[in-house]
Amino acid sequence: MQDKKLKYILHSIIFEADTRIGKVFDIVLLVTITFSVVIVMLNSVYELHLKFGDLFLTLEWIITVIFTLEYFLRIYSVKRPLKYIFSFYGIIDLLSILPTYISLFVVDTHFLIVIRMLRLMRIFRVLKLVRYVNASNTLLVALRSSRRKIIVFLEVVIIIVVITGALMYLVEGPESGFTSIPKSIYWAIVTITTVGYGDIAPQTILGQTIASMLMIVGFAIIAVPTSIIGSELVKVKSRSNTRVCSDCEYPSHDDDAICCKKCGSKL
Amino acid sequence: MQDKKLKYILHSIIFEADTRIGKVFDIVLLVTITFSVVIVMLNSVYELHLKFGDLFLTLEWIITVIFTLEYFLRIYSVKRPLKYIFSFYGIIDLLSILPTYISLFVVDTHFLIVIRMLRLMRIFRVLKLVRYVNASNTLLVALRSSRRKIIVFLEVVIIIVVITGALMYLVEGPESGFTSIPKSIYWAIVTITTVGYGDIAPQTILGQTIASMLMIVGFAIIAVPTSIIGSELVKVKSRSNTRVCSDCEYPSHDDDAICCKKCGSKL
Amino acid sequence: MQDKKLKYILHSIIFEADTRIGKVFDIVLLVTITFSVVIVMLNSVYELHLKFGDLFLTLEWIITVIFTLEYFLRIYSVKRPLKYIFSFYGIIDLLSILPTYISLFVVDTHFLIVIRMLRLMRIFRVLKLVRYVNASNTLLVALRSSRRKIIVFLEVVIIIVVITGALMYLVEGPESGFTSIPKSIYWAIVTITTVGYGDIAPQTILGQTIASMLMIVGFAIIAVPTSIIGSELVKVKSRSNTRVCSDCEYPSHDDDAICCKKCGSKL
Amino acid sequence: MQDKKLKYILHSIIFEADTRIGKVFDIVLLVTITFSVVIVMLNSVYELHLKFGDLFLTLEWIITVIFTLEYFLRIYSVKRPLKYIFSFYGIIDLLSILPTYISLFVVDTHFLIVIRMLRLMRIFRVLKLVRYVNASNTLLVALRSSRRKIIVFLEVVIIIVVITGALMYLVEGPESGFTSIPKSIYWAIVTITTVGYGDIAPQTILGQTIASMLMIVGFAIIAVPTSIIGSELVKVKSRSNTRVCSDCEYPSHDDDAICCKKCGSKL
Repeated sequence: MQDKKLKYILHSIIFEADTRIGKVFDIVLLVTITFSVVIVMLNSVYELHLKFGDLFLTLEWIITVIFTLEYFLRIYSVKRPLKYIFSFYGIIDLLSILPTYISLFVVDTHFLIVIRMLRLMRIFRVLKLVRYVNASNTLLVALRSSRRKIIVFLEVVIIIVVITGALMYLVEGPESGFTSIPKSIYWAIVTITTVGYGDIAPQTILGQTIASMLMIVGFAIIAVPTSIIGSELVKVKSRSNTRVCSDCEYPSHDDDAICCKKCGSKL
Repeated sequence: MQDKKLKYILHSIIFEADTRIGKVFDIVLLVTITFSVVIVMLNSVYELHLKFGDLFLTLEWIITVIFTLEYFLRIYSVKRPLKYIFSFYGIIDLLSILPTYISLFVVDTHFLIVIRMLRLMRIFRVLKLVRYVNASNTLLVALRSSRRKIIVFLEVVIIIVVITGALMYLVEGPESGFTSIPKSIYWAIVTITTVGYGDIAPQTILGQTIASMLMIVGFAIIAVPTSIIGSELVKVKSRSNTRVCSDCEYPSHDDDAICCKKCGSKL
Repeated sequence: MQDKKLKYILHSIIFEADTRIGKVFDIVLLVTITFSVVIVMLNSVYELHLKFGDLFLTLEWIITVIFTLEYFLRIYSVKRPLKYIFSFYGIIDLLSILPTYISLFVVDTHFLIVIRMLRLMRIFRVLKLVRYVNASNTLLVALRSSRRKIIVFLEVVIIIVVITGALMYLVEGPESGFTSIPKSIYWAIVTITTVGYGDIAPQTILGQTIASMLMIVGFAIIAVPTSIIGSELVKVKSRSNTRVCSDCEYPSHDDDAICCKKCGSKL
Repeated sequence: MQDKKLKYILHSIIFEADTRIGKVFDIVLLVTITFSVVIVMLNSVYELHLKFGDLFLTLEWIITVIFTLEYFLRIYSVKRPLKYIFSFYGIIDLLSILPTYISLFVVDTHFLIVIRMLRLMRIFRVLKLVRYVNASNTLLVALRSSRRKIIVFLEVVIIIVVITGALMYLVEGPESGFTSIPKSIYWAIVTITTVGYGDIAPQTILGQTIASMLMIVGFAIIAVPTSIIGSELVKVKSRSNTRVCSDCEYPSHDDDAICCKKCGSKL
């Protein structure tokens, strides 16, 4: 009986954001996460590591132990522990504590705890910003329904990049930095995405001509994903522009519709 | 009585752009602002500073004193001085004169008077280009209503950039220039925005593979803000097109419509 | 008679993807293609070439002989061999085997067999992803109908790039890397597409001013292809949504509409 | 009388593209223009200049003399010579021959005859591609009606770039290449347009932080011109989607309009 009550209290503190104490808990959590990520970043700066390395390590271990405790409390207090463990947030919570423990065996892996940042996505829940969640949902729906076109697009990009890479490996050769086809493909990606580091750059006239063509293709190709996602986003919007039929409750009629498109009764 | 009249005249000269003298005042102001910004720029060129440094400094002080005088006249002539002081333009006007005075104590800060440029935004008022103001309003409305989606988008970008940065710090290490996580994050931002300086660039095969993936993500991600703002801009436009027929109440007539496009009665 | 039957069986295996054996054949084909492209890539890495060069070459020849056999079986089993030979896929199939044979006479050309990758486009057929084909068709239709605007756009870009190139050649000269007009045009393309390698960069003030203007033009110009393709894509979509009511002939009903949205009769 | 006939014949050859001889003339012209631009380009390559410099110069002078002759024939045969001289094409035609003559006095200016390329825009007339002209008109209309928003946008970009430039000059100083405010502004333009040469790059942590923010602003800002022009292009399209009223001949009614929006009669 008491165990049940404890579980209930813990659940309301840890999982809910509506009660006052639940809100405080979430805010403390977010601050701690941010704090621990900043510590890891600072620890990677050599000068700071020399001076405060021990302090950083101690703080990291303290926070990790707290997060581990929190993780087990979550498992304990939730109704279906397995569902939580394999949920998106459950996996993130586990990944957030693992790197520190692994760093006992493999050097430097504790830097990977920046993955903790993913926990910051809870911020939307804390601020009760339903509209933020809606906004990200709209984006996700648009991305999902343009999935197929994006896969076709990516395949075309990959084929262009591999063929251009092989061509440039033949044309330019190792003297200009095109030492292998994989490296040439890396250069082609750097070029077609208009990043253009310049660590590898064509030197021969033929190579520069091919590169110019690749650039213009990349320039034109930027348009494609923008157009795809953009036109999906417009569609998502119009779909959410819902007029519901009063007879059959079928949603999403156009603004100029006079009759329900399902049952035919006047709107 | 006379004080009141003086205030009125000053107000009409300084704040209004409809009277002839007010217009002349505004144009002289704009020319002076541009002139002073150009002087500061030229003064930063070492060769010119050696030759004309004293001249530049004198001119800068003269203009600053004039602007200071103008600032106090504005406070004096306006009806509600506090409201002006804390308004957008009031703060800009203050920031436009401060750097020169601060440069008496802190070296080189007088270069910050380029902030004066913000005063140039008054140009829209001078040219009475109401339509320019409308244009910038349309942009602002579109940006404001896509605020939430842009925040979600920026959070995703920040999370990607921090995690990739930490990963590249582990994979590449200080030999390739990835000396710390903050620096690696800087590199990730340079890459995902497709700027690509090339001052830091991955050298290992694993690093180049991760970089390639980051580039393609960045390439695809450019599409998102474009699509968001674009679809908002379309919305803003259609919203501004709602004229409703007074007879049949059919909405969304074009600006050039004289008769209702449904029932045919005069709008 | 038997020849006809053999042809029929071969055709159903090689060309069709509906029968079980046809599907197995296609999957084996796709795996073999990917495998052979990976081998060519690895062979171009100098360290791996030293160690496994002979193995790679042997594998490449085995795969090429298999593909050659497959190519002749395709010609043999298809009803109209000439139509196949000059079809898109027929040419790709031929190009996929030629480089290995040419490499007997011209050194290093066997790297060109990465063109085999184009055969991977059959994957859409194997997976029976009609919707993928639709997606790529939508893209193609949008690209085709915006063809003219894109040609006008490209001509403008080429004219800007050539004139700026010649100008920069005069302004900067060989000291900054602008050794000839073609090279300057290459720089202008690198700049206007916002790739920006930095291998050639203006050094003089005049040169940097012209470069800045070119960059801003490039920045603004990115908008144009995006807008063109985007607005075509929206058009393609709305066009594909035209279902006309058989009673009142009101057009453009949605795909999920059962009744006409104007008169209410069944569609 | 004969003079008039000569004028008429010349006019039909030089200015018209409908007659057979007029078409031949235009094609010869286009080929000659392309040929002369290619010669100038090749002449700028040092190795080719050494070998064929004299040949190139001779050809250039021959073509220039022909173009000069053509220019005067145009003035002679046209009805209103002054209108032609000050028209867009008239000025281009003059600029196409001037650089060669100027090169007699000022060294190397003959490279500027690449401006001849602008004459290639006549190609649309030759190919009678009315639809190409329409396509470029649609683009021009969209650009023109989004003029104001683009000016507002450019002013914002210029203000951001100047202020960031001055800030970086203070933060980074001459050691990192930020030797003057104009140069820092050049860097800011290189960064905000995502070109990113890398010839100047921030070295300090503060500088890299400011640069990161500028990049993200640039990343977000790319969206704005795309959205502006895109939404205008959609508008232009719908405007050109003209249904004309049979009574008052007022154009550009919407697709779902039942009555004319000007006179109110049924469409």
